[in-house]
Amino acid sequence: MSEPVEFGVAVIGFGTVGAGVVDLLTKHQDLLTERAGLRPLLRGVGDLDLDRPRGVRVDRSLLTRDVEGLIRRPDVHIVVETVGGTKAARDIVLAALRERKPVVTANKALLAEQGPELFQVARDHGAGIYFEASVAGGVPVIRAVREGLVANRIARIYGILNGTCNYILTRMEEDGATFDAALQAAQQAGYAETDPSLDVDGIDTAHKAVILASLACGRPVPFSAVGVEGIRSVATVDLEYARTLGYSIKLMAVIRNDPGGVSVHVGPCLVPRYHLLGQVRAEYNAVLVRGDAAGDTVYCGRGAGRYPTASAIVSDIMDAARRRQYAEAHPDAFRGEPPKIRADAYDRARWYIRLMLMDRPGMLARAADVFGRHEISLASVVQREGWHDTYVPVLFLTHPAMYGAVRRAVRELARLEGIGGLPVCFRIEDLAGDEVPLSSR
Amino acid sequence: MSEPVEFGVAVIGFGTVGAGVVDLLTKHQDLLTERAGLRPLLRGVGDLDLDRPRGVRVDRSLLTRDVEGLIRRPDVHIVVETVGGTKAARDIVLAALRERKPVVTANKALLAEQGPELFQVARDHGAGIYFEASVAGGVPVIRAVREGLVANRIARIYGILNGTCNYILTRMEEDGATFDAALQAAQQAGYAETDPSLDVDGIDTAHKAVILASLACGRPVPFSAVGVEGIRSVATVDLEYARTLGYSIKLMAVIRNDPGGVSVHVGPCLVPRYHLLGQVRAEYNAVLVRGDAAGDTVYCGRGAGRYPTASAIVSDIMDAARRRQYAEAHPDAFRGEPPKIRADAYDRARWYIRLMLMDRPGMLARAADVFGRHEISLASVVQREGWHDTYVPVLFLTHPAMYGAVRRAVRELARLEGIGGLPVCFRIEDLAGDEVPLSSR
Repeated sequence: MSEPVEFGVAVIGFGTVGAGVVDLLTKHQDLLTERAGLRPLLRGVGDLDLDRPRGVRVDRSLLTRDVEGLIRRPDVHIVVETVGGTKAARDIVLAALRERKPVVTANKALLAEQGPELFQVARDHGAGIYFEASVAGGVPVIRAVREGLVANRIARIYGILNGTCNYILTRMEEDGATFDAALQAAQQAGYAETDPSLDVDGIDTAHKAVILASLACGRPVPFSAVGVEGIRSVATVDLEYARTLGYSIKLMAVIRNDPGGVSVHVGPCLVPRYHLLGQVRAEYNAVLVRGDAAGDTVYCGRGAGRYPTASAIVSDIMDAARRRQYAEAHPDAFRGEPPKIRADAYDRARWYIRLMLMDRPGMLARAADVFGRHEISLASVVQREGWHDTYVPVLFLTHPAMYGAVRRAVRELARLEGIGGLPVCFRIEDLAGDEVPLSSR
Repeated sequence: MSEPVEFGVAVIGFGTVGAGVVDLLTKHQDLLTERAGLRPLLRGVGDLDLDRPRGVRVDRSLLTRDVEGLIRRPDVHIVVETVGGTKAARDIVLAALRERKPVVTANKALLAEQGPELFQVARDHGAGIYFEASVAGGVPVIRAVREGLVANRIARIYGILNGTCNYILTRMEEDGATFDAALQAAQQAGYAETDPSLDVDGIDTAHKAVILASLACGRPVPFSAVGVEGIRSVATVDLEYARTLGYSIKLMAVIRNDPGGVSVHVGPCLVPRYHLLGQVRAEYNAVLVRGDAAGDTVYCGRGAGRYPTASAIVSDIMDAARRRQYAEAHPDAFRGEPPKIRADAYDRARWYIRLMLMDRPGMLARAADVFGRHEISLASVVQREGWHDTYVPVLFLTHPAMYGAVRRAVRELARLEGIGGLPVCFRIEDLAGDEVPLSSR
């Protein structure tokens, strides 16, 4: 394999997200190089305040207050803007584009309010603006709309796009909290700013809706076209009522792209509780895209936070580098030696085992004894009444156990006298464990 | 704007999916050109049987039985393989790659069983293999894993990857149908083949799991490493039991990518009913990807069918063309005139309106009268007992009505004597309407 091409990255804005980008580029440098055949090198981090602790390791020699100098360095090829706001951020984006350097940003306010002007400068200078992180954080929904669904006319987009609001509404719905109490809980959990108005008044959602609506219709939708209502008017009684009617209340961006025109609205919406969007809880975001070929597709995940946002920004960095330094992608996924495979006997999970047992004394004890001898601990046993048959279904839910032991136990159970048919044995996947620690491989 | 670059596409295999690709390339040719700056031209459609009706319009002069000749034509730049199976499809893929032409395919069996060999030929000839359509149909999950989540070590993937099995399990769960009856229903609905064993025995899911697992760990996972169980052992009683315990049963691919090794298992799994994956019904697919930076992201949509699969194939065609004919992407989304904006007064929806009314005779009638005068028809009115306050909450759910009329009614209601606080007015979004007809714009 040829040497990977190296390219230089500058991160401007060393706040929560900027620090996440620095950390991810450092820890996953080898992983990114292997996957893309392109090696990102962090050339510098620009900020005015260089002393505040950020909780990530970075070589101090990379830190600088000379943001303009950093952008102009010839060994910087891609500029990441994580300053936020629309003033300094705008200057940084323009400075980078005028240097013909692609810009990666999470700044939805900037794009929603000044997108057409900034993209014009980008076109004039032959550099791109990448903005995957601007909507729904770590969920690659911009890529899905622009590339994955490129063959679809997009008729509708429904988005739960603000984690703060969704967290507040979830607390109100599940705990019966008032808006004020739920807002306070969100602030304590770090999901809401001291001044929460950008979030709870729907402005942040509207910024993201402008970006999605523009992509859906292929024309710039002005921010002024968005009807915006926030969630301050939602009372606990509304959530109760909605629930009894089979609905959840979500702050929703609703984008309609009809032949007669585009409409974009942000406001509290009742959505069916048993629809996927009605199930999106706490700080999660979700986007439903309705295309004329793919039908409905839904994208869900964390809409904010250091690493989810950094994940999206780094994906854009690699995309920008790939477009500059073209190489046909040959995924390692189909090359070289197979990975180390772990035999399924070592799969550790909880298990659902259902037996058909003859309805006579002592059967249950004999079955339970088999589990005990294989050192499988039972979490619960259910045998229902009212089953009028020679054999009754009895089910066992285990505590976490190795599949090898469970398989041996099930084989033994199958041979028990007084058992009907084959035992069934299914895994229980609680899908828990959202947090996986960042590793350098 | 400069003239869009044209490129030629050959579709080999004129079955359900191939015909969808032909239809989509034809109907959305202008849309694709506008979005990508690249114009796809259908050069030919190869199949042995050219007479069977396919339900799509295509110029007969494009049809040919000379598949090899079509692949070799110098004005064909990208080859789509929609033949299926692993014999003829393999020959087509190899012939195209040896002509240094990128191949787009939905063929999971071919990739899962012969991926490493085919990708080696692709590398040797400098052409790519694109396979977005091979997993989860119209849901761009391959792109999400390879590009959107490129900055993540992927620790887990959970996938509901076979629409036939999910349809059968949903029928068993919701209607109490037996496996055999549900299978028959799936066959009648066109979701299951006459010989359903590839689906219900888990082989198809295992093929897709091999592709996802290989992408997750960056090494080729052999098909033989996958533990496979199908759904024939799932009885109605299991679904009932699981339900009472708070679980759904899904045929799930579980991929664990741990430092100690990779494990891939396909089999029936209990998943929490109130998790998103527990809510995936009928023929839908869903994939949960757990990354170390982005956390959990979920992708959901139709896993099969003519147009969802064609949507993924055409996205790959455009991707392959873009990589060949590089141009920095400048989305039209941020250029030119804004689209026609439809004023929100014309938004037609059902509405939830909650008033706080003074608890005295005649109030409800006066409020209802306001709706009537604005020609807003009420679907239901709820006033609960046991509210011990001067004002009681009363809610009105309307039939579909224009927002303009609703807004006028609400303004009038706000001025009614005997009303407390401001009325609240939320949209009801039933999220219905999966099907949007294909249009040529």
